[in-house]
Amino acid sequence: MILRSGAALIGRYLKDCRKVFSSPSYSISSNFASMESKHVQNGNALSLASLPKEQLTSFMQDIDAVMFDCDGVLWLGMDPLENAQALVIKLRSMGKKVFFMTNNSTRTQEEFLEKFNKLGFEASVDEIVGTAFLAALYLKECGFKDKVYVIGSEGITKELAKVGIDSLPIGPDAVDPTSLRWNPQDYNIDLDPSVGAVIVGFDHHISYTKILKAASYLNNDKCLFVATNTDEQFPARGLSSIVCPGTGTFVNAVKTAAGREPVVMGKPEPFPFEYVQRKHNLQPNRVLMVGDRGNTDILFGRECGLWTLLVMSGVTDINSMRRWETSQDPAEKMCVPDYYSQDVNEFYKLLQN
Amino acid sequence: MILRSGAALIGRYLKDCRKVFSSPSYSISSNFASMESKHVQNGNALSLASLPKEQLTSFMQDIDAVMFDCDGVLWLGMDPLENAQALVIKLRSMGKKVFFMTNNSTRTQEEFLEKFNKLGFEASVDEIVGTAFLAALYLKECGFKDKVYVIGSEGITKELAKVGIDSLPIGPDAVDPTSLRWNPQDYNIDLDPSVGAVIVGFDHHISYTKILKAASYLNNDKCLFVATNTDEQFPARGLSSIVCPGTGTFVNAVKTAAGREPVVMGKPEPFPFEYVQRKHNLQPNRVLMVGDRGNTDILFGRECGLWTLLVMSGVTDINSMRRWETSQDPAEKMCVPDYYSQDVNEFYKLLQN
Repeated sequence: MILRSGAALIGRYLKDCRKVFSSPSYSISSNFASMESKHVQNGNALSLASLPKEQLTSFMQDIDAVMFDCDGVLWLGMDPLENAQALVIKLRSMGKKVFFMTNNSTRTQEEFLEKFNKLGFEASVDEIVGTAFLAALYLKECGFKDKVYVIGSEGITKELAKVGIDSLPIGPDAVDPTSLRWNPQDYNIDLDPSVGAVIVGFDHHISYTKILKAASYLNNDKCLFVATNTDEQFPARGLSSIVCPGTGTFVNAVKTAAGREPVVMGKPEPFPFEYVQRKHNLQPNRVLMVGDRGNTDILFGRECGLWTLLVMSGVTDINSMRRWETSQDPAEKMCVPDYYSQDVNEFYKLLQN
Repeated sequence: MILRSGAALIGRYLKDCRKVFSSPSYSISSNFASMESKHVQNGNALSLASLPKEQLTSFMQDIDAVMFDCDGVLWLGMDPLENAQALVIKLRSMGKKVFFMTNNSTRTQEEFLEKFNKLGFEASVDEIVGTAFLAALYLKECGFKDKVYVIGSEGITKELAKVGIDSLPIGPDAVDPTSLRWNPQDYNIDLDPSVGAVIVGFDHHISYTKILKAASYLNNDKCLFVATNTDEQFPARGLSSIVCPGTGTFVNAVKTAAGREPVVMGKPEPFPFEYVQRKHNLQPNRVLMVGDRGNTDILFGRECGLWTLLVMSGVTDINSMRRWETSQDPAEKMCVPDYYSQDVNEFYKLLQN
């Protein structure tokens, strides 16, 4: 299954843009076959806390780099989780490289760094991988020279500007609020003929007009279609009754209207790993991915041939994980991690012992 | 495939609402097995114009009722197609019942009738089946007594009011247009505890807040989830560069955020036929469905065991139909009609001869 999905992915990328990331993709997919048997023994996740000390030590000796998802793992909203900063420092002191892989598309790399510093995490821009950055990088490496129509926020338009790519203005663009009936003839919908790509990220100003414009640009087969990520929803901290729609909501809306599939930058797609791997020459089987979501972080880690650790401080709970362990659905089985732990605090304390 | 999907459908309806439409569903699905072999000979559509006269006469003698999709079949926007009204009159003079099955959710039955009359079609409310009407009927037959949160327009809220069901106000409900970043804590999002169902129809005021509220209501497993239809897009007449997102766009957005599947009222789901069948005791194999879309009208007809005629005056063109004929994908094969014709004018002239 892994090999098939890897091959499909490469095919899709090649179709859109032949040269981008293709060589690392091939190297990842060729690693998959040898990786598969090593990971997730008998389809069950192991409790990190129940590992014999020497086994944990030996495992950590074979790890060169640790990749963290952020929200739900290192912090909740603007509140760092206990010993999250200390864990990062500890890992660095053990000689491990540390990376932060976030599907969030609303900030530039520099804005993420600001948030890291504000929350007391030592980091460099080089260690952070956001999906606004990846989307801009993707178009740059495609040799893209046209304009971009963005459903999203300034995180995306600023990253595009950094690589010299123009985009149309973002922000509210709704149908006349007094109109009772939709009639396209009532609107002067100007499509800019210089638009050659649509990027869909998180946009709380999503509107009918925006989806219409995206679908209309994408009606031209040559227009590239990039999604930052496909996260379905995120919890509103402290507002347990509220479900906040994630970027996947807008991506599926545009996909439906356009009748096309996007190239997706974020986890579980392999782009974030491929980017880091290229720069730091990492071996997938010497990398540990730590995340709180089975269907993004853990699936991502497994698709890329990484070791995976699921922490229970965010979205996925232990009941879901146990259900996936015994599931007959191959897609659910792929969300089972190698290891699980209560939170990064537990991981930190195990390393301290 | 037909039987399986029929059974799945009934299972889903029963889960949501045990008594609604269940008996007609069973009778349809039990008809399927005997229907299947008669229709779409060798997987190829036949040209209606190339049928020998006596074969067309004999076919029409075996038909008790003709069901028309409207836009793209009888009219384009507000322009009736040639001899569309005459065809309806001709069919009535031949003793056929005539029905109009539209997936449009923006009008009440009475408003549709007004449009029919304005465009010169003789019709009665009893012959028109719109999806706002069906959604209200569905909840009424569920014995639903709570309030409805509607993503949609007055067509839906008025039909709900007609059956005594309350709904929350519709219309624009967007995020503060000056806000640069989404933070749920900044908004006073009031969820009404008396809401027991969400209906998603066509809504050109779609917004982040609306999708959030729908997903939050649907976070309660007991909240019913009804979609009027899943049409992906519709062409903007006279504006060939514009793709207008259809209701399926909003339905998929809410599905994604809510992680749930709706009960769908419109074609290709069988509700519109089941409603008419109950009232008029029709035999599926004595009904002809005429439509312009393979994946709604024709699929609907075939799933219900009706005869099907695809006209080329709307969405589906002959190239798509030819592709489906030779497709290996069972879903595409199900969009191939029994017969095809240029338009209703050709059908009319064949009946005149």
